[in-house]
Amino acid sequence: MGKIRAGIVGFSGYSGQELVRLLSRHPEVDPVLLEHREQRAEERPTFDDGLARLPLDADKMAETEVDAVLLATHHDVSVEVAPAALAVGKKVVDLSAGYRLRTVANYQRWYKFDHPHPQLLTEAAYGLPEFFRNVAKGAKLIANPGCYPTACNLALRPLIVDAVLDRSFGVVCDAKSGVSGAGRAASLKTHLSEAGDNFSAYGILFHRHTPEILLTSDLQEHELSFTAQLLPLHRGILETIYVRTADALTHADLYDLYQRRYADEPFVRVYPEGRVPSLRDVQNTNFCDIGFHVDPSTRRVTIVAAIDNLLKGAAGQAVQNLNLMFGIEETAGIL
Amino acid sequence: MGKIRAGIVGFSGYSGQELVRLLSRHPEVDPVLLEHREQRAEERPTFDDGLARLPLDADKMAETEVDAVLLATHHDVSVEVAPAALAVGKKVVDLSAGYRLRTVANYQRWYKFDHPHPQLLTEAAYGLPEFFRNVAKGAKLIANPGCYPTACNLALRPLIVDAVLDRSFGVVCDAKSGVSGAGRAASLKTHLSEAGDNFSAYGILFHRHTPEILLTSDLQEHELSFTAQLLPLHRGILETIYVRTADALTHADLYDLYQRRYADEPFVRVYPEGRVPSLRDVQNTNFCDIGFHVDPSTRRVTIVAAIDNLLKGAAGQAVQNLNLMFGIEETAGIL
Amino acid sequence: MGKIRAGIVGFSGYSGQELVRLLSRHPEVDPVLLEHREQRAEERPTFDDGLARLPLDADKMAETEVDAVLLATHHDVSVEVAPAALAVGKKVVDLSAGYRLRTVANYQRWYKFDHPHPQLLTEAAYGLPEFFRNVAKGAKLIANPGCYPTACNLALRPLIVDAVLDRSFGVVCDAKSGVSGAGRAASLKTHLSEAGDNFSAYGILFHRHTPEILLTSDLQEHELSFTAQLLPLHRGILETIYVRTADALTHADLYDLYQRRYADEPFVRVYPEGRVPSLRDVQNTNFCDIGFHVDPSTRRVTIVAAIDNLLKGAAGQAVQNLNLMFGIEETAGIL
Amino acid sequence: MGKIRAGIVGFSGYSGQELVRLLSRHPEVDPVLLEHREQRAEERPTFDDGLARLPLDADKMAETEVDAVLLATHHDVSVEVAPAALAVGKKVVDLSAGYRLRTVANYQRWYKFDHPHPQLLTEAAYGLPEFFRNVAKGAKLIANPGCYPTACNLALRPLIVDAVLDRSFGVVCDAKSGVSGAGRAASLKTHLSEAGDNFSAYGILFHRHTPEILLTSDLQEHELSFTAQLLPLHRGILETIYVRTADALTHADLYDLYQRRYADEPFVRVYPEGRVPSLRDVQNTNFCDIGFHVDPSTRRVTIVAAIDNLLKGAAGQAVQNLNLMFGIEETAGIL
Repeated sequence: MGKIRAGIVGFSGYSGQELVRLLSRHPEVDPVLLEHREQRAEERPTFDDGLARLPLDADKMAETEVDAVLLATHHDVSVEVAPAALAVGKKVVDLSAGYRLRTVANYQRWYKFDHPHPQLLTEAAYGLPEFFRNVAKGAKLIANPGCYPTACNLALRPLIVDAVLDRSFGVVCDAKSGVSGAGRAASLKTHLSEAGDNFSAYGILFHRHTPEILLTSDLQEHELSFTAQLLPLHRGILETIYVRTADALTHADLYDLYQRRYADEPFVRVYPEGRVPSLRDVQNTNFCDIGFHVDPSTRRVTIVAAIDNLLKGAAGQAVQNLNLMFGIEETAGIL
Repeated sequence: MGKIRAGIVGFSGYSGQELVRLLSRHPEVDPVLLEHREQRAEERPTFDDGLARLPLDADKMAETEVDAVLLATHHDVSVEVAPAALAVGKKVVDLSAGYRLRTVANYQRWYKFDHPHPQLLTEAAYGLPEFFRNVAKGAKLIANPGCYPTACNLALRPLIVDAVLDRSFGVVCDAKSGVSGAGRAASLKTHLSEAGDNFSAYGILFHRHTPEILLTSDLQEHELSFTAQLLPLHRGILETIYVRTADALTHADLYDLYQRRYADEPFVRVYPEGRVPSLRDVQNTNFCDIGFHVDPSTRRVTIVAAIDNLLKGAAGQAVQNLNLMFGIEETAGIL
Repeated sequence: MGKIRAGIVGFSGYSGQELVRLLSRHPEVDPVLLEHREQRAEERPTFDDGLARLPLDADKMAETEVDAVLLATHHDVSVEVAPAALAVGKKVVDLSAGYRLRTVANYQRWYKFDHPHPQLLTEAAYGLPEFFRNVAKGAKLIANPGCYPTACNLALRPLIVDAVLDRSFGVVCDAKSGVSGAGRAASLKTHLSEAGDNFSAYGILFHRHTPEILLTSDLQEHELSFTAQLLPLHRGILETIYVRTADALTHADLYDLYQRRYADEPFVRVYPEGRVPSLRDVQNTNFCDIGFHVDPSTRRVTIVAAIDNLLKGAAGQAVQNLNLMFGIEETAGIL
Repeated sequence: MGKIRAGIVGFSGYSGQELVRLLSRHPEVDPVLLEHREQRAEERPTFDDGLARLPLDADKMAETEVDAVLLATHHDVSVEVAPAALAVGKKVVDLSAGYRLRTVANYQRWYKFDHPHPQLLTEAAYGLPEFFRNVAKGAKLIANPGCYPTACNLALRPLIVDAVLDRSFGVVCDAKSGVSGAGRAASLKTHLSEAGDNFSAYGILFHRHTPEILLTSDLQEHELSFTAQLLPLHRGILETIYVRTADALTHADLYDLYQRRYADEPFVRVYPEGRVPSLRDVQNTNFCDIGFHVDPSTRRVTIVAAIDNLLKGAAGQAVQNLNLMFGIEETAGIL
């Protein structure tokens, strides 16, 4: 069987550049660049990467010779391209928020956006392989998770699924992200003179990623405090998460609980007692690293979860999902 | 009346350099450099700053012609220099942790340190002027607060004093500091190749500043989750603090509550609704800036407090305390 | 005599913010904010700085109650505001390039700009006090030098004036600047994800500052290699300058030569043998620091000159010039 | 045929970590960690990398089951380990300066070091494949070039070999390096609070890499001005090189000249007119990128050359040399 042909839309953004880099070395995939009409000229690369470039034309999607489409675009674009691609039998991984939420109401509330394709919201698979691997395998459309929710949900779900949380305390998630999370569009917020040598909170309690965290973690809105903050660096997310356990548990108890979920996972690493991950441990990798500190006497637990926002938080997880969709080895091209 | 002569011990460290800078421009103070025998050569300044240099000799402290001694040294040094200076009638501001805690037991627990002068622990004034101004005015020995506790206590005390906290939830303080907080000694932890482009937690639950926070805030140990984390930058501390109020309060309620405490304070700024401070707002100033986000429906409050760790968190507050001790205008040299 | 009232146009840019900061503490000047109609809203400051704000209306300049106007604006704006202010008797310091060059032809060549007020080009004083102090004292319009030329000319002029250069070798000026030199407008070039953790050349041989360097240094175009490069930081310029002396000179020879020019200058510091300045030595100061390495056997000399581009390279030097214009102590407000 | 077993000495330093990373994915090589008795504990990696660890014992080198030894150690160590390994038939790539120079006198002058094995200095091959590929193929001991000389010599040799330089002008090489070039040992120089947000020159004219540049470029000492400077970032070297051509040449002339040397080179990329490389173009790659600006009217040429100091300047080039030594595809494991 030949290689999968995967078209990348939005290839000049930070996530798109990572898709190009990963798929160019992927043993089973041939990447193709699909140029959206609004695609701004790709400014960086000096040297021809040798990849085919095709126009992205929603009306002629059937003629576009690709097996899959990866959308590293704003949700405005992806919500329209995805149905056109699906209609002619192509599989789609959408890296935007376009199909992550389940209801039109949520899009109106959080994005002030009237979703034009509500029926697809129920068909889209939420691509967090560690928990929904089988759904991804059969999916035609995968909503690739957001970067903050990926780290948060991988850190929290073992506790929630096993019902060891003290729900009266809820969850405090203090999240810090590199500026690549804000995209490549120039803005005062990402100006080196403003964001460099600085640290600031930009989303408190009502960040757009909140509904996605709630949806997947099974938390109620009143149980969650979430703050999104900007680190003076390019890539990486680290979340410090505070919970209380219902009963007094030790580090060994929690370590066992996490290892039951993750021991066989290729991209989740649980840290032994006395160690938590730093950003450096995960930058330029597809790993989600998780460590924690446990105080049985107060039942307070501090969890530290770290990912590369452009890889496990975007392009790396998208390739992981693409692999699953096409029955390729899950780690191909990203280990 | 002539100027106050203030001797600076530890003048080549980061806090010490700030003391030199501030006092060189202070209208009422003449700084003098006191060279401790272990003082490593001051490496940076090329040009003679014109300041007098005297040897620091504990045995001949009486002959050292200074009115006050500021100790920007390790607590090992300051616990010995302070009594010697006090014995010959000099006033002391200790920037180290040497006299911040109240009991020998606390030093043993948190610093593995047998405090040699327990009687001074009860005499030392804790120099947080916003709450203990009158004590500072009459003090002979001031324990200058730690950087983390300064921000944390200024952010929390209005809530605690007015008893609006939901004590069952307690307090989560997620603290981030620039690397100058680790001092000027070379270490792998502060190597630019390790700390740059990185973010890491280094003190979870059991940081040395915890007892100081508890002491001043009147919180119990089981009520506090505190994490100290390292930002890839030189100076500044930002703390994101999560609490729950006992009753449903609005931003306006809390704003009034904070303004009652701080409206007349020269170095505390409370932000209006919709804004929280970033590090940039306070770097190179003696301000503590405080903003918050309030959700009455869940009673969750997120407070953001920021200071410059070398100024309001060290040298700036030390000058503020020096001013109070000598009856000088409190803002002299630091506004 | 009352204080000088100085109007600041362009007060939200980086140089403008420094003008506001410096003049707010200046003992002899009262700053006023002049709001240009195109002035974008000032985004940062949370707290009212207490300064008066007046509309900037060229037609009603006579009614604007200021003694001087400082223009921290694009040259498009300053070339028009300056004549209007001069016409009604106000003094002007222009921080833009609007009046730095002497001929209409140079503006056409280097800026593609038809200068609308050629007669003022000959009247404007070039505000480099270390060499043209007396001209500044009597000037009505001062063209404040560019940041690169300030460092370059202060480093080179002693050699050129004393004719010790080997002109056949010429001058190589390898210049590095923080991104604040590119202004506060958002652009991909200054995006932290692009400029952070990076270093790049953006102006080789034909940078706009070249004519200004040539004009003041008395070099011919063929004698100069100039490269402008972007450092991954906010503020500061460091130039490494390579020359050859006509005769074999020692460090002592050159040190004497520089000290003859600069020993009494309040803002130029010449380094002793074995030391050259780093950016840290000058950031947040109005100093230009100069050090050099001399090899008499090859006659090769490497000069390192450093300034803060926003102070000695912009706002600080503008205040220095303002002081000279009004007969105030030259160092007032900037030492 | 089985895989090559390559022992890595000094695997916890920055170059050593890169060797581990590269060789762990190399299709033809099995890496082994050789623990030197002075090896400080490797601090970073949390997770077992699965690699074999053997003690490095010079007396029992024959029993150490490796085919090659890569020395990412100080030259004090490598000058002794290399002969021991060679004596028992192992091939050696030395990443230190231990065998780069050709004479004992040069080691005494530049390193204050009495080289204990002078005979090996003439046997060692200088591992710059683009010019000495055939020597590398037959070599038993390869001296892996220094980072600064690699970029400088790749940028200069085409001009020197083809004799187009104006030798009376010579060469000015203004070099900037990330702090990883200073190694992983903690020092004040690499402290984030000192090196971050800063830029400084640390080696002017008499840097240790000078003799290596001279040796390979065929320049005379009096023809070269070289300055080594520290960028506030982890990895990458960019050198801005100023020369004059003997005759008036255009960009097209020089582009042809460089392409004649490099068109078939897998790791050298020559930029078209109007573009020069930035650090970002080469970080995390084994490429040396070269661009230039040419002014035929003044014969001045500005060359910009960039490499990743840890890859093409160290570990990447070492693997390239290892590949050549063992007849493996030259790009294996590093493209």
